[in-house]
Amino acid sequence: MRPVYISGLGQTDVGEHWQVSLRELAHYAAQPAVEEAGGAPPEALFVGNMLAGQLSRQQHLGALIADFCGWRGIEAATIEAAGASGGAALRQGFLAVASGMVESALVVGVEKMTDKIGAGVNAALATATDSDYEGAQGVTPAALAALLMRRYMHEYGVALNDFAGFSVNAHANAKTNPRAMYRNTLTIDAYLRASMVAEPVNMFDAAPDADGAAAIVLTANLPRESDRPLIRIAGSSAATDSLAVHDRRAPLVLSAAALSARKAWAMAGIGPDDVGVFELHDSFSILAVLSLEACGFAERGLACTLSAMPDAAISRSGRIPICAFGGLKARGNPGGASGVYQAVEVALQLRGEAGPNQVGAFRSDNGREPGSEVEGKGVGRRVEAAWGMAQSLGGLGATAVTHILAREA
Amino acid sequence: MRPVYISGLGQTDVGEHWQVSLRELAHYAAQPAVEEAGGAPPEALFVGNMLAGQLSRQQHLGALIADFCGWRGIEAATIEAAGASGGAALRQGFLAVASGMVESALVVGVEKMTDKIGAGVNAALATATDSDYEGAQGVTPAALAALLMRRYMHEYGVALNDFAGFSVNAHANAKTNPRAMYRNTLTIDAYLRASMVAEPVNMFDAAPDADGAAAIVLTANLPRESDRPLIRIAGSSAATDSLAVHDRRAPLVLSAAALSARKAWAMAGIGPDDVGVFELHDSFSILAVLSLEACGFAERGLACTLSAMPDAAISRSGRIPICAFGGLKARGNPGGASGVYQAVEVALQLRGEAGPNQVGAFRSDNGREPGSEVEGKGVGRRVEAAWGMAQSLGGLGATAVTHILAREA
Repeated sequence: MRPVYISGLGQTDVGEHWQVSLRELAHYAAQPAVEEAGGAPPEALFVGNMLAGQLSRQQHLGALIADFCGWRGIEAATIEAAGASGGAALRQGFLAVASGMVESALVVGVEKMTDKIGAGVNAALATATDSDYEGAQGVTPAALAALLMRRYMHEYGVALNDFAGFSVNAHANAKTNPRAMYRNTLTIDAYLRASMVAEPVNMFDAAPDADGAAAIVLTANLPRESDRPLIRIAGSSAATDSLAVHDRRAPLVLSAAALSARKAWAMAGIGPDDVGVFELHDSFSILAVLSLEACGFAERGLACTLSAMPDAAISRSGRIPICAFGGLKARGNPGGASGVYQAVEVALQLRGEAGPNQVGAFRSDNGREPGSEVEGKGVGRRVEAAWGMAQSLGGLGATAVTHILAREA
Repeated sequence: MRPVYISGLGQTDVGEHWQVSLRELAHYAAQPAVEEAGGAPPEALFVGNMLAGQLSRQQHLGALIADFCGWRGIEAATIEAAGASGGAALRQGFLAVASGMVESALVVGVEKMTDKIGAGVNAALATATDSDYEGAQGVTPAALAALLMRRYMHEYGVALNDFAGFSVNAHANAKTNPRAMYRNTLTIDAYLRASMVAEPVNMFDAAPDADGAAAIVLTANLPRESDRPLIRIAGSSAATDSLAVHDRRAPLVLSAAALSARKAWAMAGIGPDDVGVFELHDSFSILAVLSLEACGFAERGLACTLSAMPDAAISRSGRIPICAFGGLKARGNPGGASGVYQAVEVALQLRGEAGPNQVGAFRSDNGREPGSEVEGKGVGRRVEAAWGMAQSLGGLGATAVTHILAREA
């Protein structure tokens, strides 16, 4: 297997793009990514999308987007794994380049939730669950998240306000991300006063449905003549769990997330302590909690303590920064595009191009000395993460796709 | 890149499976394929499916099918490229194994057209076209096929009855395929009397929507202790064209089909003359015609002559047998599963396990001597193809995925 590098990044604003069609949205992310990679048409296109067939009444996005971007003829296909579609598309792009069959692969995650020509959004999102036993009975993803959250609170004696830190952190981080959907400050008070979506999941526990597109170019050859640090995909893996939450042996353990994280670390030759930034799938606060526990960043029942303020471990200056650009919660959750956004954001961190959203750098910027556990990874005073992790989940964790990105020395 | 072998095959009957759910249908194809490959769970599952989100209100088939088959935990994703979804899933499985990252990949194509919980079938199929400019204007795939067929008749002075041979051949071949949906004989008279779907496309020019599932296990290691001939994926490629037919420079030239065939042959080191059997995408007669021309088996405007009876070149005993098990027309067209059926059928041919549907063998069985151009490829008296080709099209040829299968000496 040959090494696979990231040679171009692109992303659109996340929000409601009423005036832009699906193909245009994809183009706005793909174009800058391909430009950065040198401008030549990619050899293959992998589209991460979940809902276009249902919401936009458009499938076959591979050929559609390839043609619209001016690359008629190139290989193209859509990859779907519900909310993990973006991560799954990145993995297919990785496999294609790693195989030696494809020299350059463009991965585009795109979703347009504001297109509602076909089914309604909630009905469409419920197709990510086990339709026969969940969706068709009226059980939406939000309802499933509520069941998990309630069970978690019961099992570990955790209160609603213990979850507040995740959404507060996400909004705080999104503030300086011009791409983010919600850049307003969220206070604990506002969180606690929020109306319920599906008790105990409140409005601020659920990431907003959004439109957006993100893109990554993967190449086997080293990009030449670039001052940018070189980013390599050091780990890539996917795993599954039962789609129906009630079928899982221990519903509070995201076994797919745990398994795919272990496989990705093994491939990269690292462990959780090496991860400098973790873009996790916080489509619901409870999923952020369960992801941190599944991936070994917290003991079971204790992940909420990582969000305890001040000096939360999950903040950009903390021990394990998550959602450094706002996460699904505040950057917004454009379904099948979210997994690609996560990887773009991790790559920006490792390149040191995250600006005010930089983890580690932020730490030194605000005057505090880097902690010793971080110092080893840093370069001089500018403390940047050398390894970053992105994990994309589908359907309450039934699919998990994990990527480890590494900055080459 | 390491070699990739086919180590297991499975398929269900094609037809209307009202009593069977999507996951069960997939299981019925997957189980025998995995059994044949030794019974161990595959490491990764690639599902080819086009319409489950719209028709069954179920996406996220990867995790769903993996779990239902008893392989909870394995990597899984769905690959979509409209009608070429099955071929595209096979290609992703191939890339995964070729990359060295995955030791065994199960490719399952599954479609259930009889599930109509969501959208209607015609509306759903139209999402394979350019929705904004075709589908949303009421232009269905059948209507697009009619425009192409009319143009072809005008351009080359071909009459309706010149197309009859394709459907007659498909039905004749399906007769001995117990999996096929339509095993009745079709006469030229019946063809000419058939009611129109979208003039000049008649009822026998359009392949029937169907339910079905087919499966292939791909492995990097040689299957041990098997008397079966070893089948290798010698060529694999995908290409695209404009989704909107009116945007193509020469609508009668399937440029994606031509390009992907050329790439697949180059990879396999062969040319069209080496192909002993060609499973092409005859969702409409005109697509069979245009595929044969795009892939160099006939000059432009002359493909219909290959179907002229008696002794049609496309028959099982002919120069370039197509649709040897009935093709999409008579075996049936279960959308995203069709591409996997095609590859299963080619593999059976190369193994010499096609029974009465065997190409070449059929030639000697009925007492005629093999022609000299075939003899070179045969083994002793039993004349079997050494190379076979499967080509899966999506959306009137906007996506084409081509695989070349080879029998190892």
